Parts: sequence; structure tokens; C-alpha cells
Amino acid sequence: MDPFEDLIAGLSSPSAPTSAADARLDPHRRNRKGVPEVIYGPGKTLELIERLAAELIDATGRVIVSRPDREVRESLLRLYSDTHHVSGRWSLGIEDPARPVPATGGRLGVVTAGSSDIPYAEEAMLVARHMGCRVSEVYDVGVAGLHRLFPPLRGLLDEGVDAIVVVAGMDGALPSVVAGLVNVPVIGLPTSTGYGAGGGGIAALLSMLQTCSPGLAVVNIDNGIGAGSMAALIANNAAQARRKR
Amino acid sequence: MDPFEDLIAGLSSPSAPTSAADARLDPHRRNRKGVPEVIYGPGKTLELIERLAAELIDATGRVIVSRPDREVRESLLRLYSDTHHVSGRWSLGIEDPARPVPATGGRLGVVTAGSSDIPYAEEAMLVARHMGCRVSEVYDVGVAGLHRLFPPLRGLLDEGVDAIVVVAGMDGALPSVVAGLVNVPVIGLPTSTGYGAGGGGIAALLSMLQTCSPGLAVVNIDNGIGAGSMAALIANNAAQARRKR
Amino acid sequence: MDPFEDLIAGLSSPSAPTSAADARLDPHRRNRKGVPEVIYGPGKTLELIERLAAELIDATGRVIVSRPDREVRESLLRLYSDTHHVSGRWSLGIEDPARPVPATGGRLGVVTAGSSDIPYAEEAMLVARHMGCRVSEVYDVGVAGLHRLFPPLRGLLDEGVDAIVVVAGMDGALPSVVAGLVNVPVIGLPTSTGYGAGGGGIAALLSMLQTCSPGLAVVNIDNGIGAGSMAALIANNAAQARRKR
Amino acid sequence: MDPFEDLIAGLSSPSAPTSAADARLDPHRRNRKGVPEVIYGPGKTLELIERLAAELIDATGRVIVSRPDREVRESLLRLYSDTHHVSGRWSLGIEDPARPVPATGGRLGVVTAGSSDIPYAEEAMLVARHMGCRVSEVYDVGVAGLHRLFPPLRGLLDEGVDAIVVVAGMDGALPSVVAGLVNVPVIGLPTSTGYGAGGGGIAALLSMLQTCSPGLAVVNIDNGIGAGSMAALIANNAAQARRKR
Amino acid sequence: MDPFEDLIAGLSSPSAPTSAADARLDPHRRNRKGVPEVIYGPGKTLELIERLAAELIDATGRVIVSRPDREVRESLLRLYSDTHHVSGRWSLGIEDPARPVPATGGRLGVVTAGSSDIPYAEEAMLVARHMGCRVSEVYDVGVAGLHRLFPPLRGLLDEGVDAIVVVAGMDGALPSVVAGLVNVPVIGLPTSTGYGAGGGGIAALLSMLQTCSPGLAVVNIDNGIGAGSMAALIANNAAQARRKR
Amino acid sequence: MDPFEDLIAGLSSPSAPTSAADARLDPHRRNRKGVPEVIYGPGKTLELIERLAAELIDATGRVIVSRPDREVRESLLRLYSDTHHVSGRWSLGIEDPARPVPATGGRLGVVTAGSSDIPYAEEAMLVARHMGCRVSEVYDVGVAGLHRLFPPLRGLLDEGVDAIVVVAGMDGALPSVVAGLVNVPVIGLPTSTGYGAGGGGIAALLSMLQTCSPGLAVVNIDNGIGAGSMAALIANNAAQARRKR
Amino acid sequence: MDPFEDLIAGLSSPSAPTSAADARLDPHRRNRKGVPEVIYGPGKTLELIERLAAELIDATGRVIVSRPDREVRESLLRLYSDTHHVSGRWSLGIEDPARPVPATGGRLGVVTAGSSDIPYAEEAMLVARHMGCRVSEVYDVGVAGLHRLFPPLRGLLDEGVDAIVVVAGMDGALPSVVAGLVNVPVIGLPTSTGYGAGGGGIAALLSMLQTCSPGLAVVNIDNGIGAGSMAALIANNAAQARRKR
Amino acid sequence: MDPFEDLIAGLSSPSAPTSAADARLDPHRRNRKGVPEVIYGPGKTLELIERLAAELIDATGRVIVSRPDREVRESLLRLYSDTHHVSGRWSLGIEDPARPVPATGGRLGVVTAGSSDIPYAEEAMLVARHMGCRVSEVYDVGVAGLHRLFPPLRGLLDEGVDAIVVVAGMDGALPSVVAGLVNVPVIGLPTSTGYGAGGGGIAALLSMLQTCSPGLAVVNIDNGIGAGSMAALIANNAAQARRKR
Repeated sequence: MDPFEDLIAGLSSPSAPTSAADARLDPHRRNRKGVPEVIYGPGKTLELIERLAAELIDATGRVIVSRPDREVRESLLRLYSDTHHVSGRWSLGIEDPARPVPATGGRLGVVTAGSSDIPYAEEAMLVARHMGCRVSEVYDVGVAGLHRLFPPLRGLLDEGVDAIVVVAGMDGALPSVVAGLVNVPVIGLPTSTGYGAGGGGIAALLSMLQTCSPGLAVVNIDNGIGAGSMAALIANNAAQARRKR
Repeated sequence: MDPFEDLIAGLSSPSAPTSAADARLDPHRRNRKGVPEVIYGPGKTLELIERLAAELIDATGRVIVSRPDREVRESLLRLYSDTHHVSGRWSLGIEDPARPVPATGGRLGVVTAGSSDIPYAEEAMLVARHMGCRVSEVYDVGVAGLHRLFPPLRGLLDEGVDAIVVVAGMDGALPSVVAGLVNVPVIGLPTSTGYGAGGGGIAALLSMLQTCSPGLAVVNIDNGIGAGSMAALIANNAAQARRKR
Repeated sequence: MDPFEDLIAGLSSPSAPTSAADARLDPHRRNRKGVPEVIYGPGKTLELIERLAAELIDATGRVIVSRPDREVRESLLRLYSDTHHVSGRWSLGIEDPARPVPATGGRLGVVTAGSSDIPYAEEAMLVARHMGCRVSEVYDVGVAGLHRLFPPLRGLLDEGVDAIVVVAGMDGALPSVVAGLVNVPVIGLPTSTGYGAGGGGIAALLSMLQTCSPGLAVVNIDNGIGAGSMAALIANNAAQARRKR
Repeated sequence: MDPFEDLIAGLSSPSAPTSAADARLDPHRRNRKGVPEVIYGPGKTLELIERLAAELIDATGRVIVSRPDREVRESLLRLYSDTHHVSGRWSLGIEDPARPVPATGGRLGVVTAGSSDIPYAEEAMLVARHMGCRVSEVYDVGVAGLHRLFPPLRGLLDEGVDAIVVVAGMDGALPSVVAGLVNVPVIGLPTSTGYGAGGGGIAALLSMLQTCSPGLAVVNIDNGIGAGSMAALIANNAAQARRKR
Repeated sequence: MDPFEDLIAGLSSPSAPTSAADARLDPHRRNRKGVPEVIYGPGKTLELIERLAAELIDATGRVIVSRPDREVRESLLRLYSDTHHVSGRWSLGIEDPARPVPATGGRLGVVTAGSSDIPYAEEAMLVARHMGCRVSEVYDVGVAGLHRLFPPLRGLLDEGVDAIVVVAGMDGALPSVVAGLVNVPVIGLPTSTGYGAGGGGIAALLSMLQTCSPGLAVVNIDNGIGAGSMAALIANNAAQARRKR
Repeated sequence: MDPFEDLIAGLSSPSAPTSAADARLDPHRRNRKGVPEVIYGPGKTLELIERLAAELIDATGRVIVSRPDREVRESLLRLYSDTHHVSGRWSLGIEDPARPVPATGGRLGVVTAGSSDIPYAEEAMLVARHMGCRVSEVYDVGVAGLHRLFPPLRGLLDEGVDAIVVVAGMDGALPSVVAGLVNVPVIGLPTSTGYGAGGGGIAALLSMLQTCSPGLAVVNIDNGIGAGSMAALIANNAAQARRKR
Repeated sequence: MDPFEDLIAGLSSPSAPTSAADARLDPHRRNRKGVPEVIYGPGKTLELIERLAAELIDATGRVIVSRPDREVRESLLRLYSDTHHVSGRWSLGIEDPARPVPATGGRLGVVTAGSSDIPYAEEAMLVARHMGCRVSEVYDVGVAGLHRLFPPLRGLLDEGVDAIVVVAGMDGALPSVVAGLVNVPVIGLPTSTGYGAGGGGIAALLSMLQTCSPGLAVVNIDNGIGAGSMAALIANNAAQARRKR
Repeated sequence: MDPFEDLIAGLSSPSAPTSAADARLDPHRRNRKGVPEVIYGPGKTLELIERLAAELIDATGRVIVSRPDREVRESLLRLYSDTHHVSGRWSLGIEDPARPVPATGGRLGVVTAGSSDIPYAEEAMLVARHMGCRVSEVYDVGVAGLHRLFPPLRGLLDEGVDAIVVVAGMDGALPSVVAGLVNVPVIGLPTSTGYGAGGGGIAALLSMLQTCSPGLAVVNIDNGIGAGSMAALIANNAAQARRKR
């Protein structure tokens, strides 16, 4: 398959009349990247979100709506919770049970420094599971009580994870500590936990960017979608190599 | 006409008694610049906005109230929606149907990266249409799925637009990509879509300021009024040159 | 001509071997945009700059090297000042006298607030003249002595300029004042003149972005290339409309 | 009078028992500085504010409560509006009509760029009037329509004002323009009007700090109390010199 | 006792199954550091907080819940105010009256610049008292009326405090003044009191970090927990030395 | 005299030809404001500075060149030190001894927190003396050793100064302390002394902007020219009132 | 092998005497992570760097010294260029030719937006090659001339790269564009190319963090070491899976 | 002794004539605080530094000159290295061997994350030793190789240190890790090691301010003087308590 097939098709098309279509779904992205299209909730009307969600579920069997406001969340729960598999305390995943994601064999770990980081960890796990990965989670093992980290981290390594997402707000020290200990790629996910100077995730993000441990790359503050899709892409590519054995 | 006529008149006036008039409309601006006076909503009382709107509609046939709060919006809708042409989901344009803006012949394109950028695009279109331009819009063609951009962009160029407003939040990459492809001036309008580091439009603004594509200038984050009036001024001056043929 | 001709050609090409060519000139840009390719000096070796300059002069008859360091500047002067037209105290324009830029009929004004802003104004004029515009300059007319502004600004308007670049550091107030007085598009070019809080051009940039005058868009601090190419694009498109009469 | 009388008294006092008195009024400040004590509302309980206000009215005949929340405002209005002179749409001044401030002869002007700046201007006027100055106001004369500025500014100068407070948000250009025109000290009061980069008063503050006009000093964003007390101190000292004639 | 006992135990443990335990209490921290575990409220569900609080009260006789929202605060008051000692207007301390903290002999002073700083001072005192210190408070003695500072500061020194927490927002000048006067360690606690540039505690924090007085270290804005635990650790270590006499 | 005489003249002038005059002196400013024109050194060529200095000395008997680089400083010293009164270790004042500034009767104090602040204090004194004020200086009396402040501050008040410039870097606490003690207007001049977070004068500026002492306004970091001219304007206006007795 | 072997050994060791050893090499890291230890040049003395380099070459056959100053670079070249394989125009790799890195089978692509980004790309390639990867580079294919990107990007995909490092300064748009086109993980490496607002790599970093393309994670500005080691870790883990076939 | 003795003396003094003394030493500070006066080098002339150093050595037997430039350093070495004890690679301590500091019994540990942090650690040790403390150092034990930390940290605890200064740049994670392990107060000293976003010590400072470990307070970036004097004050007060046994 030509990797630029979509682009070539786009460029060969005649001029489009400029009508006011307010959103253009990308039905091919899942094929191109293995990453599902995510509907970013803020700033969109309820009507638009419902329409897009319906189109995506119809086309691909699933959808993720990130950061829906209360009205959107409740409306989607009303529409889908009886007939679909719906999950997520913050962002929302909806899956047609008749069309589950096939397991890719990719394996991930998700580790959080504190309990307040869990919603962001869940967002990363949601997108990774929609990409067919198996994900194991370890919560509340921050550097203020380092001894709590070792047994579950050893567990993740025993499972043979392909990558680890480390989620931390405040001082953001945990990803550097973990990346200093393991030999798999680490994705740092800074969270907005914390107040004052460096609060809202700034200290955590900067500390991760300044890490002295190799093998750590980061996504933006609270961007569980980005962390999960990056980690799952790494894991799925490794799993594909394993499958080709 | 002396371009500084207003200034000279002001300087020749005797000392004004300093009474507490709380707003001074500028009825001549439309003549000077072709740009309508816009009432900036935040921080003004309902009473003041209603009075200013009435004076401007009376004097010029139209008014734009930017970013009205819910109370102001609803009051203006109550007052004008039966008798006037009222438009805009965010900022509000009110037009006396008996005094429509004459078409100048200026032609603009407005392109958005995502659906969340639409309210700001609409604000730009509102002011441009109040300045007599014809505006075509293209929505949701961001760089994550670049193939969606080409057909409608080709359409805009076929229409012979005099300038293009490109509206983008988050990474703000689309204006640089568009300015690298077209030979008309591009106005970058960064929007506050996005969260975390560089959120609220900061990354988008900075990326546009750092563009490596020539022919791109920017206005402030979410400043649809500014983008629309700059683009319409460019288009109207070009249209005037065409008319002089 | 298909506006995306280059893109289509690129996408239809076979896979390129990934050799370490360290720069790829874009010989078609002048055709696509009317904007000459500019060699950004910092971070490039003398050898690379000399090679790129020679190729561009050969291909197009001219080149601009922005912000060359002393060694690069002196080397280029040695190589070209006897046989070519070389200009610019900061950035450097080199032109083959046998292949002058044809005049487009575009007309620009460039206005500076202080004497320290002149190098950036000259950079804008350099690129605009390489794009075929006629440019008139007005220097040192900042808001601390506003009376100095009016006679030369009246002169620019009498000349019928298509756009005005207003260059200001420190408080950055002049572009807002000028945009409040004239009916042509204004490009604000903030400069790094000034120290302390808001120094290095930050206050000037922010003040321009926050302008309450319509018809003003900005480029980045000290970006004379960007201001000049944007203004010249506006002027050349208007001139083209005039020519079509 | 020894200017450090209070300090010497404080240092000569015996050790105080450390009881939890939650506020310590400074009854001598009015004597030391001619500046009334202002109760900063945010973060204080209603009970504390009511008690402090009662003590200050009792001791000095007046009080200013800055930025009271709705509950505090309404409670104070209930308590005092029948028997005292209460004023201010944002901050609140309460004055015992039997003990009016004696006029000092100090004369001030207060000028705003836009209508949204009025609440901050009123705060400055409130404190200046509580310090015995006569204040004249001029509203909505920003640089986008400079001709509106001259007649009332001429009026202020005719009145012989000792200082001018210039209030501006957004681009913050007006104080630099005014300071370039008048020969009295100007206090720049940046306001939080405006959004996007440089919004919330940042651009206005920085532009004022970077002013190229001499004779301009600034206070913090929205700090009408600070601007009013500084200007009134200048005016009252000048008035004292006049009285000593 | 081996100081790394917990770590060694953690490392010697077998791999833990990665179940989704959402919080891991650290029952040994009180032994290791003498510092009680604090439940950080924001971002945790009511259910999780109630469960953690119950476990900690059960294990140690007390708990501090920092920054609970209204729902959490009211629920904890309902659950514990009849049977336990509950204190704190902002953060909340809950103590089993049958298991009071033994006094360590550590002695602290807490000084605030203004009344708005009191909630943060109270948070520092709460944690210090839970660590067994005796704390004396001095409120509202900022640099605008310096004479108010001396008698109570002399009082604190007479009491022989081991360290002083100085709490200040806005200009943040008081900690530098106090550290210039006393010979005990000073912990600066900047607070978010203040608005405009440097508001939200930024000016206070930076001014303390830039102090020209030796013997001053700081914690983050509004971090009463951090200031109190640091000061109490200093005081308790000194008290331990005294006890060993 | 009409205060806007210059403006009216400027507006009545015919269009000026736009020649490239690189600087426009403002010979009337001294009349308008009593403030001498200052040549801002950075970014200007030696030739331009020498020409402007000669013109200003010729026209007004004096000039100040702020922040000259070494080459400019040495050249000016060579040209003028034999025949003129030249002063200033950083910025440079040049005065024709035959045309000394007449004393206005204005009186100022300049106070610095540390020895490193002296160059900025000297710049303020230079401009104030060129405006005819008498200036007394007090150096190195910062808050780390507050006792050093009182005797000389008492001295300044005894002299009857009209305003005090307080110069401080690092924590910037001194202006707030002084403004809390005196009853004359205080101009805060933050300096770039200090490194790390809040270094380069940022903490000092922000702390002054956040001051809880009334009667303090600020100029930008290291802006001795601005502080001196503002203070001298205040003093000269007060002195004028005294003379009118 | 127990992944925490080093930690357990460290914790079981007796107390170390605290002598002033100024650096502690980590000879086991290569085993733990496959990542070589890199000597960070700035702030270290020549003597220390030479000693550490000699120890590492002795122990592992190779060393990377990042950002050596001129003196360090020249000294290392003198010491090693005759006998070792030395490479890198900025950071410096030294390899004992008798002990070359065994190829792992990992495959990477490195793509730059401009020529000024090449030094950082070379740093990433240096570390990746020291980790045994094969790396293909593509330079100067930024979004201002997008058509140049496609043929070499197609080439990289044909080679089957496991990950792509995309290096960009200024607008930082290229990584988002590439991540929108390919199905392998992308590491964004922002560079300090560019000046003005968002210069020094800030706009590039923020735009990458705000990307709307999935499958992109970033390292810090100019951190070629970090980008290279992260990408090589991904590639080597995938290669290991392939080898296990 | 009255703690405010100096203040009272200052306030009781008559007005001082305002002569231009450029520095005022504080000979009593050592008595008040036990902290020696430090001469801050930058911005002072060689002559002033030499004079102040001579006066302080004469008065107290020792001096610390922080951050002297090369000229100052060499001059002081020439003057004192034959006859005095001179130490410090960056800041410079000079001690009269005939008047050594008496040991107080205070005990400190200083720990650095990397070798580049050593100069700042040495500055902290220098001031602590001038205050009579015994200091043990541990270098290069950052979180990328955590196992290196434990043996020497155990050693420090065995020595019974009263406080630990932890010095770290880049990610700044080490102080949080150490404070989570020990039961003595920790002073975090962030250093300017590191580049890019959060470089120059910003990430390290913010991460320390955001620490989730109790018992950690910080000083400004690179402020070894501040960290050393704070830690030594804690240690000396504890030692005094021990001595009183």
C-alpha cells in the first residue's frame, strides 16, 4: 500500500465547493496508523458530538470522546449504556460489543505517582485498549515512599511489557526514577495535580523534559490520549515483530 | 479629503468640560477605515451596551457586539430578532435589513484546523461580511489528516480570494502549511483550543509567529474581529483596484 | 497552473535514497509565491552559505542572506561587491545587476518609531524591493513626540501606498496609533529595542497583538523578512489588480 | 514630629503576648501619610470586614473596602447606606457625612482609554477623594480614535491638575501618548481588559514600563487604590506648597 | 534501625500482581520521619478520602485532609465532629481524643503579613501541632506598618522558638525583614494573596527566593503543609537534642 | 501657550517628502516637559550618536547618552572631556560649563539597597540634575540590616525632599519599607542585581508592583532615566508651587 | 537477572565513608539499558572529562562527550583522533576501532526541517549508532516546501524504520505533519533555531506538545542525546522481537 | 541582649548627613545571626571589593567573596594567598590562619546529583565551614543510577548530620527522593545545570517546590551561600541545644 495514498487521492480531487461542513471524519486513519479517531469534547456542541460519535461507531465499532462536559457525558450514557460497552470516569469510551478490538499482543504498563493522577492514567489505558493492547496498572507509588514502587514494577517487567507510561503531577520525579531502573521505553505523562509555582503540571512536565535518565519521552500535561496512543503504537509494532516470528 | 481631518478638528476644538460621559462613539471610523465600530462586551453594563448598540444601528444600520455574556445576548435577541437580521453563535451581528452592506467585491477564504475553531472563524466572517466582502469557509482540515485540505483549498484559489484567514489552535501548524502552498496573503488566527503547556492558544500563536513560510502575519488569540477586519481591508483595497479598471 | 503542482510531483516521485544532502533549495518558490528564498544565516557553516548563495544567484539573479555573522558577511562582500549590487547593513542582499527585479507597481511605506529600529526596517525594505515593490521610508517618529509623525505619514498616503510596515520596539505603541489613522493594512514589526520587563521586543509584540485599532496584523520580533514579504505580497496582489485594468 | 515615632514606640514596647488577634489596624497611618487605611476584601470573612470597617469609621470617619464580594457588598450597603455616604460600583467607600474630608487643594485628572476601564478609574478617584483631592474624569479616549482625546485633555490642563492618572488595558498605549503631550507627572494604571497573549493587563503593564515618554511611572494591573493614592500624594504635596505661599 | 529498612523490604519482595489498588498508605512514614501522612484532597473522590481517612485514624489516631472541597469537608465533619477533635477552617485535622500527640518540646512561631494569609498559617500550625510542637502565632504585622511587628516578634524570641514560619503574599517582603532581625531559621511561606503582575503569590515567592537576608528558605505558594512540616522537623530535632541533655 | 502647539503645527504642515533622515530631534521637548532629550545608545552607530550629541549640546547646552558601549564612551570622552563637564560611570552626561542648568528648587533623595545598585542610582541623579534638581544620595541600606537605614532617611526628610527614588534589586523589599515610613511620593527603581528565579530584576519589579505600602509607583528595571525624570518632574512642579508664593 | 540487582547491592552495602569523589561512573548502565553513559560537558573541568572519558573507553570501548567546549574538543581530538574513530561536529563520539558496536538490527530515520537543525540530528544519530542501530537521515524538508518531504519519507518507510526522529526549530510543525502520515512512533526533537517570541525552541517544543497527530512524543529542546536514545531503545526492542523469530 | 539593639540604636541616632558612602558593612551581623557578611561580587568595582574584604578580614578574621570575576579573583589571590587560608574554585573564602572559626559542633551533609553541581555545593560548604560546622560531601549520586546513592547516604546518617543540603540541576528529582528517605531537614539547592525548557535551574527549582516529600525547603538557583547559611543555622542551633546538655 502506498503510504501517501490518501494524500494523492486528495490532491487529485477536483476543487471542492466550500460548503460549511463543520467536521470531516478521517475514516482511514485507523488503517494508516492503527490509532482510532478521538472526538475532542471541549468547544463542540452536543449535537455535533452525538452525530460524530454515531458515525464513528457505525464505521469502526467504537469511539472515544475526550473530556466531555457533564451534559455530553450524560447524553452519551443515556444513548449507549444499554447496548454498548461504555467505560471511563473522565473521557468516555464506547464500544459495540459485537465488534470488539482484536488483541494485537502489545503489552503496556501504566504507573501513577499518586491517586489524583488516576483519571489521566485511565484515559491512556482507554485508548491503548481500543488499539488492542493489554494494559496493567500500578497506582500511587510516588517517590515520597519509594519502597512501594519495587514489587509492582518488578511485576510489570516480569509480564514483559513493551513500554511503560509513567503518570505524575507535582514534582514529576517518578518517570526519571523509573526510566533509570528499566530497559523498556518510558512515556512520561505529566498531570495537572499540584498548585503554586510549577503547579498545573508545569513542574512535572519540565522535570521530565530535563530528565537525566535516558529512554524517556513525554507528552503534554494531562494528555492521556497522546501517551496511550504513543505507547500502544510502540507496543503494537513490537508485537507485530513478534508475530512475524 | 485630508486623512487627518478628525485630528485637526479635535485639536482646534476648545477645551471640553470634563463630564463623565462613559463612552464616545466614533461615527467617522467607518468613513476613515471602512471598518465598523465593534462594541467589546466584557466589562460593560447591559444598559451601556444597549444604548451604544441602538446609537450605532441608528447611525450606520448595523452593529457587532463581541463576546456578550448570556444576559446581554438574550436581551439583544429579544430587542432585535424580530425586526433585524441577527447572526453569530458567539459574537453577535445585528443588521437593519433595510440598509444592507453594499458588496465591495472583496473575496476572502476562512479555513479552520478543527471544529472547535469554528466560533472564532465565524467572528472573523461576521466582521468581514459587515465590511462588504464575500467569504467562503472551509472547516476541519488540520494537519493530522492533511489530505482533507487540498480539494477545498483548491476551491478557494479557484474563486480568486484576495486573502485567506487560517484559524488553528493546539499545534497551530496549519497556517504555516497553507502559507507554504498559496500565493495570497494569509492571516493566522490562533485559537484557545488546547490545554496543558502551550494551551489556551499560546503554542498556536508562537508557532505562527515562528513560521518558516513567507506571507503570513498574525493577530492575537481568538481575535476573530482583528483577523476579519485585517483580511477584509486587504480584500477591499484589492477590490477597489479592480473596480478602478 | 495547478497550485499544487509541486506537491503532486513530489508525491508521484519514487522513494528517494536517503543521502545526507544538507540543504534542498526550492527553485519554484519564486514562481509559486513571488517571494525569493532567503538563506537564514545563524547555525549554517560558511561553506554551506556560500554554496547556497551561489546556486540561488545563478538560478534567480539574486539572494538575501539574513543575519550573517561577521565572517560570512565579509566573505560574501569579498566575493560579490565588485561585480554585484550588494546592500544591507545587517541582512545582506546580493543582486546581479544584469538581472534586476522588474517593478511590479506595488507601493509600500515603512515607518519606524526610533533610530534603533532602522536595521529591522531595512531588512523589510530589502525583501520588498527584491519582490519588485517601491518602498518609501519614514524614520524616528515615535509617540513621545507625536507631532513629528504627521507630515511624513501624510506623504505616504499621498503616494498611494498599498500597505504600511510600522516598526517599533519598547512600548510598541506606534503601530496602534498609525492603524487608527490610515485606511490601508498595517503590518506591525516589533523590534528587540528595550531592556528590563517586556524588553527584547516582548512588550512591543504584546501591545501590537492587543491593539484596539482594526487593520493591524503582526509578525515576530525583529522579523523584517516576514514583515517585508507579507507587505509586498499585499502590495503586489493589489498592483496586479491595478494592472489588469 | 519624629518621622519614626511609631517605630520607636514599637521597639520600646515590652514583648507582646502572642495572642491570635487576626488584624491590627494602623490608626496613625492617616497622620503619617495622609493615606487612609484600605480594607482589602478578598480572603477575609464577612465578620472580620464588618468589624474592621466599624472600627475605622469610628476612628477616622471613613473607610474604603476594596473588591468586596457580593455578600460583603450587600451587607455593608444594608448597614451603612441609610446613614452614611456610600459610593463605588466595585470597591466601596463609606463616609460619615458629619465628618467630610477637608479639601486639600490637590487637583487630579483621571483619563481612561475605554469604557471597560471605568471601574478601575473609579477606584482611583475614590481613594483620591478620600484624601481630599478634587478629581476630574475623562473616559473612552483611546488611541484608536485619537481625535477624541484632545479637547478634554486640554480641559484638564486648563484646570491646572497636579498629576494625571491614565487608565488603559489592551495595548496600553494611551499613557505613553499622554505623557508625551503634558508637563505634569502621569501615573499609568494598566487594567485587565483584553484577552489572549498579553491579556489580563500584561501587555498594557509592559508597554507602560517600556514607555519612551518621560514622566510616567506605573502601578500594578487594576490597582486603582495604588494609582489614586500615589497621584493624590503628589497633588497634596504640591497643594501644600501652594498653601504655604 | 536501618534507615532504608522499608526500601530493602520492598526490593526483597516478590513481584506484586498489578491489581488496581487506587492508593497505598505509608504506615511507616510517621516512624521514619515523624511526619504524618496528609491526604491531598483535590482530584480524589469522596469515597476514597473517607476510606483513607478512616484507615489513617485507625492506624495513627489522627489525619489531615488538605484542601477538601465543600462536599468532603461536610461529610467528614458529619462523620467525626461528635467523637473526635476536628479543627481547621481550610484544611482539616481530625484527632482521636484518646490518642493525643505527645508534646515533643519543639517550639515554633508563625507570623503573617496580613489577615488574608491566616488560612495558610493555620494549615502550617495544624501539621506542626500534629507533629507535637507548641506553636505561637502573630498575625497582620506586614511592612506597611513595621512598628506593629516588633513587640510580638520580641515575644516569640523570648519564648525561645526553634524556627519561625513567616507567611506573606503580595510583596513578600516580611520574611526578608524578619530573617534580617532574628537568629533562628526562618521558613518563608508565600501566599496567593494579591492580583495583577506577580499576583497569586509569584512576587512573594520570587522576592523570598531573592532575599538578601541569610537564614531563609522557602516552600511553595500556599503550601502550609510543607512549611509546617519543615519547621516542625527542625524544632523536633532541636528538642531531641535538648532532651538528650 | 497652547499645550498642543507642536501637534497643531505638525498637522498643518504639508506632506513631507519621505527621505531617509535617520533621526529627528525634538528641540521643543525641553520646553514642553522640562525633560532633556536622552540619546539611547544601544543599536545606534557611533557616527549617529556623535552627530546627535553635537546637535543637542549646540541647541541646549547639554546631553545625556544612556548606556553607550565602550567605543562610544571613549570617543565622547575624547571629544568633550577637555572642554565640557562630563560625568557618569555608566550613562554619560555632557554639559557646556558656560550654560549650566538653572536650579529649580526641586529636591530629591535617592536611596539604594546595595552597592551594586549604584550605577542605576547615578543615572537617575544625572537626569534629575540636568533638570535642575538638588539630589541627596544614600547608599547600601537594604533590609538585611535595617538599622542602617534610619539615620540617613531621617536626614533626607529633614532636608525636605519632594520625592524619593528607592533603588533595589534582588528581593526589592526596600521601596515598600520606605514607602511605609515616609509621607512623600516614592518612585521604585528595580535593578537587575540578582540571579536565578526572579533574577535580573524581575522579583524586585514584581515585589514593588505588589507593594502593600501606598504612595509607591515604579519604573522599569534599570531605568534610571525614567525614575529620575519622573521624580524630578514631581519635584519641579512642587518647587514651582513654592516659587509662586 | 533481577532488574533491581544494582539497587539491592547498593542497599546491602555498608555505610560509605564520605570522601570527595567527584564523579561516579555507572559501568552497569549499558547492561541495564543498552544505553551508553554520556559525559555532559558543560560545567566539568578538562581534567575530569579526560579522566572519565579514558575510564569509559577502557571499560566499554567507546564514549560520547556532549557539548564539549573548544578546549575540551581539541584536547580530545589530540588524544584520540590518531588511534580511535572520532565523529561529530558538535557532540563528540570516540570509539575504539577494535571494539565496534555490534549491529542490533534496529532501524531509525532522522528527519530535519532545516539545515540549521543538523547538529542536533547528528547528536541523535551518534548515540543511536553507539547503541547499534542503523540510521538513515533526511535533511531540510520543512513545511514551507512540503513537496520536498515526500520522496525521502517514502524511502524511510520502504526501509522499514522502527521509529523516526523529526528535528525542527522555529514553528515546529514538521513532526505533526510527519506523525499524521506514518504508522511508526515519532520522536519530536525541538531545536533552538529561531529568535523572537517562541524562539530558542520554545514555539517548536510547545507546538509538538500540542500536536493533534497521535503517535508523537517529545524530548527537550536540542536534546539529541535523549531523542536518539529513546528512538534506539524502541528500535532495539523491536529488533529483539524480530530476532526471536 | 535585646534582639533589636541595632535597630534601636539606628532609630535613636540623629539625622545622618547624606554623603555618598558607597557601602555600609554590618559588623554586628555575625553577632546577631552567626552568619558572616558575604561580599556579592557582580556589579562591584575591584577597588570596592578589595576595600570591603580588607575591612571584613580586619574586623572578623575572614571574608567570603561570592562570584568574583577573573580580575577580582586573581587580585585577591595575589593579595592573600601567601598569608591567609584561601579556598573555593568559584566563590572565594579568605581566612586569617591566626583566627580560625571555632567549631560549633554543628554537622551537615552536602549531596550532589551530578559533577556539574559541585561548584555550588562547594559554595554552600564554604559558608557553613565559616560558620563553624563540620561538613561531609557526597557527589554524583543522581536518580539515573539510584543505587549509587545508598551507601554514602547511610554514611551521612551514621555521622548524625543535623541537616542535609541536596544539590541538583536538570530534573531536580534527587532532593525529593532524599527527603523521602531521611528524618532530618533537607535544604534543596537547585542549580543552573541543564538547557532547553526548564533549563538554567527552573525545572529543578519548580520540581523541588512541588515536592511530595515533607521536610524539604529550598533556596534560589545556584544560591550556595543561602543553602549553606540556612543549613548551618539549623545545625548550629541544634548543636547549641546539645551543648546545653
